[in-house]
Amino acid sequence: MSLPELAVQRLTDLLGDRYTSEQSVLQEHASDESSHTPQAPQAVAFPLSTEEVADVVDVCATHRIPIVPYGRGTSVEGGIVASHGGLCVDLGRMNRILAVNDEDLDAHVQAGVTQFQLNEALKGSPLFFSVDPGAEATLGGMASTRASGTNTVRYGAMRENVLSATVVLADGRVVRSSSRARKSSAGYDLTRLFVGAEGTLGLITELTVRLHRRPDALVSAICAFETVDAAVRSVIRTVQAGIPLARVELLDSDAIAAVNSYSNLNYPKQPTLFFEFQGTRQGVQEQAEQVGLIARDCGGGDFEWADKQDDRDRLWQARHDAYYAMLALRPNARSLTTDVCVPVSRLAECISETQVDLNRCPFPTPLLGHVGDGNFHVLMLVDPESTDELALAEDVNSRIVRRAIEMDGTCTGEHGVGIGKRQYLIAEHGSGLDVMKQIKQSLDPFNLMNPGKVLEVGVSGLQ
Amino acid sequence: MSLPELAVQRLTDLLGDRYTSEQSVLQEHASDESSHTPQAPQAVAFPLSTEEVADVVDVCATHRIPIVPYGRGTSVEGGIVASHGGLCVDLGRMNRILAVNDEDLDAHVQAGVTQFQLNEALKGSPLFFSVDPGAEATLGGMASTRASGTNTVRYGAMRENVLSATVVLADGRVVRSSSRARKSSAGYDLTRLFVGAEGTLGLITELTVRLHRRPDALVSAICAFETVDAAVRSVIRTVQAGIPLARVELLDSDAIAAVNSYSNLNYPKQPTLFFEFQGTRQGVQEQAEQVGLIARDCGGGDFEWADKQDDRDRLWQARHDAYYAMLALRPNARSLTTDVCVPVSRLAECISETQVDLNRCPFPTPLLGHVGDGNFHVLMLVDPESTDELALAEDVNSRIVRRAIEMDGTCTGEHGVGIGKRQYLIAEHGSGLDVMKQIKQSLDPFNLMNPGKVLEVGVSGLQ
Repeated sequence: MSLPELAVQRLTDLLGDRYTSEQSVLQEHASDESSHTPQAPQAVAFPLSTEEVADVVDVCATHRIPIVPYGRGTSVEGGIVASHGGLCVDLGRMNRILAVNDEDLDAHVQAGVTQFQLNEALKGSPLFFSVDPGAEATLGGMASTRASGTNTVRYGAMRENVLSATVVLADGRVVRSSSRARKSSAGYDLTRLFVGAEGTLGLITELTVRLHRRPDALVSAICAFETVDAAVRSVIRTVQAGIPLARVELLDSDAIAAVNSYSNLNYPKQPTLFFEFQGTRQGVQEQAEQVGLIARDCGGGDFEWADKQDDRDRLWQARHDAYYAMLALRPNARSLTTDVCVPVSRLAECISETQVDLNRCPFPTPLLGHVGDGNFHVLMLVDPESTDELALAEDVNSRIVRRAIEMDGTCTGEHGVGIGKRQYLIAEHGSGLDVMKQIKQSLDPFNLMNPGKVLEVGVSGLQ
Repeated sequence: MSLPELAVQRLTDLLGDRYTSEQSVLQEHASDESSHTPQAPQAVAFPLSTEEVADVVDVCATHRIPIVPYGRGTSVEGGIVASHGGLCVDLGRMNRILAVNDEDLDAHVQAGVTQFQLNEALKGSPLFFSVDPGAEATLGGMASTRASGTNTVRYGAMRENVLSATVVLADGRVVRSSSRARKSSAGYDLTRLFVGAEGTLGLITELTVRLHRRPDALVSAICAFETVDAAVRSVIRTVQAGIPLARVELLDSDAIAAVNSYSNLNYPKQPTLFFEFQGTRQGVQEQAEQVGLIARDCGGGDFEWADKQDDRDRLWQARHDAYYAMLALRPNARSLTTDVCVPVSRLAECISETQVDLNRCPFPTPLLGHVGDGNFHVLMLVDPESTDELALAEDVNSRIVRRAIEMDGTCTGEHGVGIGKRQYLIAEHGSGLDVMKQIKQSLDPFNLMNPGKVLEVGVSGLQ
């Protein structure tokens, strides 16, 4: 099925060859990095500006064509799968950095700029952008899924790091969610409404993001533990002691094995914490010493230090590549990746109960976590052809999610809902889910904006 | 005009003598601490629990009675003035601290708990609650206006410090906005939707707020400058240098005079910065030295240090009382208090252009600011009987607001919109204001929740 002829005409007039329904391009836009079933859109548009996006959305609104936003396809909950067909709006070519405001510690960018690109552009400046998910995602995509990363424990997630967003609404109106002021009490928090909405309330086309000052001093370390439990307990004690960790990442022994093999390293195959301390030279030393004592007290081994830039880079590159390293544990597998986040006080218990579930799995299930936030992932590396493995992985995921929700946690700490977590929102939010649906219906009455993601609100557009 | 008889009957059945229409109580609930014209509600309810609030709202929904939430009446934009009549729901007796979770650094409280009360309860624990507006406000009221305080530059505003809220919606449904997880990507950010909505989308009845670990070391200092401009420039340079100030407050010479007189102090009558440094013992010293150098470089005088608890308390008590001290500059005056916030890079320019406006005013206009956030206040102490003074103050306020919006700032950094800032939202938000109205209409179709505040959306209930 193709889009209505009049719509195709208008889109071609607008975009020229930046509008296409070529099969190979459609297939490239059919799936993300997850095990969710691919589904191709009917066409793909490559706009270059907010104005073009507004024009494209206007055409779609007129013809009731569903719209699926696309950044770099790195989502893992099926957020960009075209489950209702329609037009994929690929924002990847909107990759201009529009302004860097040194004095205000912020940058204004188009939505297709990636975190790497922004940090590359900031090289030589005293500033950096802090949110660093494993994938080379676009800032628009990261904002839409309310993403976070390894140093969220110190600098916050996208929720805290988006100052303002420019959004094209379902009817083609363009809205800027707020001024560039650091704080405001001027009405409803539209910025936080669009951040995390996964494109279901509008398409984020530009963002102003916070930048942070690079710390004077920076020291990384890894420390191996006998058990995951001991590692987690040392993190809890560190957080409680008020020590401002910049990063604290857990890899279990399977994840360490994956990283060793992928990045040609030889860390001991044990549950391991990756730390980073940032601050002034003296402050960093104080922090590191305190954490060293706590870790030892919890049964940790010696700290292996990395204070030279090269060593630090190697250590964090290994952590950064961990997702792909773990995928490589089983070639041709797809990952069903869990993403629960619980109050830190419940984290050790949550992980240890989860390990009982994982012992049932015949496929690799490496675990890693942003433990300072109470967030961890299991990659369940299933054979996509095996319905048995998929069913088992779904069952384990479901048990992990329900456990996290019972512990007053969330089904997704940073990956988003997409289509993968929709079924859990009623357990997590209760009547709050109805509030979300009311908002969705008021802003997108024809359910055109990324339909079928986050919420199920009936039919959409052409269907 | 009184409420419908059936409603009165049901409310009396529910609440007994905690429902009243006694004139003296109505008058106590007619005005906040601002110059906005008082208007009394038709009755006042004093619920004790979320369930009671839900029952009260259910009665109001049935009979289309407007609802005005009330904490301690410390708002300054008319947020609790009963401009459409109806029932005032005074949450002040919902003042129980329900849980303190040491391990997770959070506390669960009823909405009527005040910041002082919570911190009093935390004495002896290593934790504290950080948001400290000048007034003894309730946490529910502070959440509703997205309030902030002197250490927001370090710990964030209510936006960052509310983890979850329990909210009674316009139809009596009870919603919990999120789990207690530190981060989540599970759907729309309902917490941030209700924080700052000033009760217009529902009544916040309970909150989970973040707590912070008390720093090991703490040093305060004041430093006088020849000009406001020099003081602001030193703050900008400090922020840019990435020095993690815990507090940095500006008082102009009029404000210092007020504080001296009110708190029996003798600070030099000059523009003055109040600093606080927090961290480890060595970190604090490093920070203080760096800031000392920057301040001197900008023409600041010597730092007057306060590192003993008593001295620090005296210094910050003086700052904390500054609002009341400034009010005392002109007995029987009411204050029209400005509240703009701009990107820090524009702050010096914004204040210096503002001072030209203030020179036109025949009444006292002390200025103080949370300058690390780009936020400052002018208290225009007008004779409430003088229409000339009121008109001039309104004109100056309007000029300050328009200037801030032109500088990509906001009309209100922390006080909220109430009725005082409604007229500026179109200039600040453009079509974003329509989005806010759509959300309001979808969640409160009969405009019963604090009608006439934040947004104007036509008639309400009984009117």
